Amino acid sequence: MAQQPDFTNLKALFINCTLKKSPRQSHTRGLMEVSMNIMRKEGVAVDSLRLIDFNVPAGVQPDMTEEGYDTDNWPHLFKRVEAAHILVVGTPIWLGERSSMASKLIERLYAMSAMQNDKGQYLYYGKVGGCMVTGNEDGIKHCAKGILYALQHVGYSIPPQADAGWIGEVGPGPSYLDDGSNAKNSDFTNRNTTFMTYNLLHLAKMLQEQQGYSPYGNSPAAWEQGERWQFEKRS
Amino acid sequence: MAQQPDFTNLKALFINCTLKKSPRQSHTRGLMEVSMNIMRKEGVAVDSLRLIDFNVPAGVQPDMTEEGYDTDNWPHLFKRVEAAHILVVGTPIWLGERSSMASKLIERLYAMSAMQNDKGQYLYYGKVGGCMVTGNEDGIKHCAKGILYALQHVGYSIPPQADAGWIGEVGPGPSYLDDGSNAKNSDFTNRNTTFMTYNLLHLAKMLQEQQGYSPYGNSPAAWEQGERWQFEKRS
Amino acid sequence: MAQQPDFTNLKALFINCTLKKSPRQSHTRGLMEVSMNIMRKEGVAVDSLRLIDFNVPAGVQPDMTEEGYDTDNWPHLFKRVEAAHILVVGTPIWLGERSSMASKLIERLYAMSAMQNDKGQYLYYGKVGGCMVTGNEDGIKHCAKGILYALQHVGYSIPPQADAGWIGEVGPGPSYLDDGSNAKNSDFTNRNTTFMTYNLLHLAKMLQEQQGYSPYGNSPAAWEQGERWQFEKRS
Amino acid sequence: MAQQPDFTNLKALFINCTLKKSPRQSHTRGLMEVSMNIMRKEGVAVDSLRLIDFNVPAGVQPDMTEEGYDTDNWPHLFKRVEAAHILVVGTPIWLGERSSMASKLIERLYAMSAMQNDKGQYLYYGKVGGCMVTGNEDGIKHCAKGILYALQHVGYSIPPQADAGWIGEVGPGPSYLDDGSNAKNSDFTNRNTTFMTYNLLHLAKMLQEQQGYSPYGNSPAAWEQGERWQFEKRS
Repeated sequence: MAQQPDFTNLKALFINCTLKKSPRQSHTRGLMEVSMNIMRKEGVAVDSLRLIDFNVPAGVQPDMTEEGYDTDNWPHLFKRVEAAHILVVGTPIWLGERSSMASKLIERLYAMSAMQNDKGQYLYYGKVGGCMVTGNEDGIKHCAKGILYALQHVGYSIPPQADAGWIGEVGPGPSYLDDGSNAKNSDFTNRNTTFMTYNLLHLAKMLQEQQGYSPYGNSPAAWEQGERWQFEKRS
Repeated sequence: MAQQPDFTNLKALFINCTLKKSPRQSHTRGLMEVSMNIMRKEGVAVDSLRLIDFNVPAGVQPDMTEEGYDTDNWPHLFKRVEAAHILVVGTPIWLGERSSMASKLIERLYAMSAMQNDKGQYLYYGKVGGCMVTGNEDGIKHCAKGILYALQHVGYSIPPQADAGWIGEVGPGPSYLDDGSNAKNSDFTNRNTTFMTYNLLHLAKMLQEQQGYSPYGNSPAAWEQGERWQFEKRS
Repeated sequence: MAQQPDFTNLKALFINCTLKKSPRQSHTRGLMEVSMNIMRKEGVAVDSLRLIDFNVPAGVQPDMTEEGYDTDNWPHLFKRVEAAHILVVGTPIWLGERSSMASKLIERLYAMSAMQNDKGQYLYYGKVGGCMVTGNEDGIKHCAKGILYALQHVGYSIPPQADAGWIGEVGPGPSYLDDGSNAKNSDFTNRNTTFMTYNLLHLAKMLQEQQGYSPYGNSPAAWEQGERWQFEKRS
Repeated sequence: MAQQPDFTNLKALFINCTLKKSPRQSHTRGLMEVSMNIMRKEGVAVDSLRLIDFNVPAGVQPDMTEEGYDTDNWPHLFKRVEAAHILVVGTPIWLGERSSMASKLIERLYAMSAMQNDKGQYLYYGKVGGCMVTGNEDGIKHCAKGILYALQHVGYSIPPQADAGWIGEVGPGPSYLDDGSNAKNSDFTNRNTTFMTYNLLHLAKMLQEQQGYSPYGNSPAAWEQGERWQFEKRS
């Protein structure tokens, strides 16, 4: 049997993009807790938040108070994104799509993507991303596709099977935490949640031990200074 | 400046999903060569093929001759997929979507996803995937989203910024290799191609050195035997 | 109660993009028959085919024998598309996406989109499109989105709620026609199939009676000759 | 030449989902004005708004003040949606996706979809929808796909070629209204904008003259009372 690795140096942040403010029940939160509990039991430092509980304007600037808004909690929340090796984005499905809150989160993550780490790489390099989706009908893969794409686009690494979710049979019906759904017993969802969680941990640990990616071949700063490594323009 | 890593133990396979048979000119091939050339200069063993040149029926079985087809080149081609640490899928854009050939490739990759490696993980675990997209109009991110999602779903790992592409201004116009496009000089496309290529190499090397993922927490065989690691069902 | 309209002058074509050749059982066909049966009982002339039963190369030219292929059934099949007021595209879901066969169909429909009717409009103007999707897991809306978009893009009109489908609870499980699925009794799927079918009929009848769209404002031929109607370029 | 129809009884609403509050310059607004101007010159009553200028909470209830929010401008804005025969949704592209504001709009439109008209149909039946997209890089079709799908799903009809947009060559660059983009002179965008506009008008006029859709075959109220028209359950 495989040996238990030591994940105790890792930090993970779970952002729930439900449309319901705390303390209202969020089915997405219900599923995210399964993954958070695995991580906690593995000794990972787990942080979590609901984006809708905060005052975060839509926009694509790092700090929207500079764009005329009175308040913007994002710069403060972003410190928690920076501190975490792993980011898991959770979203409900509405009309087959991720929530507007998930889109706002990605817009604000993207707004920070010009920031660089001390190797001259995009700031998210060396971090690992996953996503969790709940609904009662249809759309896990569609939502996961967009979220995982956005995360890798700004610099996150995506391990195998980095998403998990639950939906019921086609059409309206009970949601994840509802008794009628029996969702907590879904072997498929439980297995995917487990595999996602461990693959995030394995890749995050590997990247932590390697101190992230070598900047050979991926540094915008070096590219701007004319470094091309083995790239050659087609003639 | 970052030290040059040794990538000479790596193998990469580039599958071009153009709708044009060899030896017709493929713009997608034109872009893929930029990445292949970087890899070759880094000492990587580079293999490549056009799916449309082969007799590969659509279907979701490992070998379609067992479903009544006379010929199926896929089982043979699949050996090349198995041999490669890195898979790069290239596709043209038609009506905003990846080609039907790219969809067929993913269906056939998916058909093999029940196969396991000697750790009891899905076969693609430990491999790394990326994608390249060309068109003259619109849709790189949409195509990349679907392809990268499919790759991670079957077990590939996705490094940061694992896609690159070229399109012109909205509407019909010259394609990548056409003189009028000036695409070969696109700093944006050249940089993304370079970063994608190196990030694929870095992550593949890291996974090779770690001998892939530990099976702790992600083995379907162990799950079926009742192993749950630190997963606990919600009550 | 609403009066029964007379739909007996209408013709509909159902194209099934299953990956299974006839006479193998297609779950997608199973669902499509529900809609076809409504139409037949309303006196509509119903035609249907499985694309995979024909020799149709992938490609974006009207006739691929001009591109070096020995055979291309598409030009002949296309006559059936031309003859029908209504086109319903059916697809199974594989890894959350429409089948490669559905993508090939759309590529070939698109290849004909330069053809014009006798008003100088795209050939599909005045026709009406819908789509039907089956799987055992997830992705109806994602597949429908892409197919309906492509249809309207080439000139089809899309009535309200122009898609219907069936999937089971998340994860593998029985398919539409399997006894265990109870899918034939899904009130949600049956209602959506019914509404889709009637909305296709209503809009097709309306467009037939109006002899399609007036070419005022939408004729590529007129645009090329300099006609701009009330369009004015921004200064 | 085609005769000019009389569109003077029609009303259209253009909702701009930019992330910039008035009076900041919105490129999406810039493109939407081209369509609005055609309509105005055709005698259509044109209304328009920026969603971000209003206090509209995210959520899927008709009135979020019943969910604990102090203010919700949506019920008031919705009267303008109800009054219009045509709805055009405009969105910028961020990371290849529609804005979070566009997602919020669709969530709130969806929240009203249980409302019925006096024929027992969904409220949006008989209305016509389109969409306009601007960015500097990539993603018109992806955004349009999701928006048009959502509109038809809640009951809008979609005429041929119901979207128009502008993007520049791959990578960052000037936006629609910027001098450097030359976008106002894009023949492709101007033609698509014109065709979209007129097709929306033609279909809206047709539906207005027919007093919308017959409720034969598409009334949820009748379905719930057991009416099935020619639908028959599969045995």
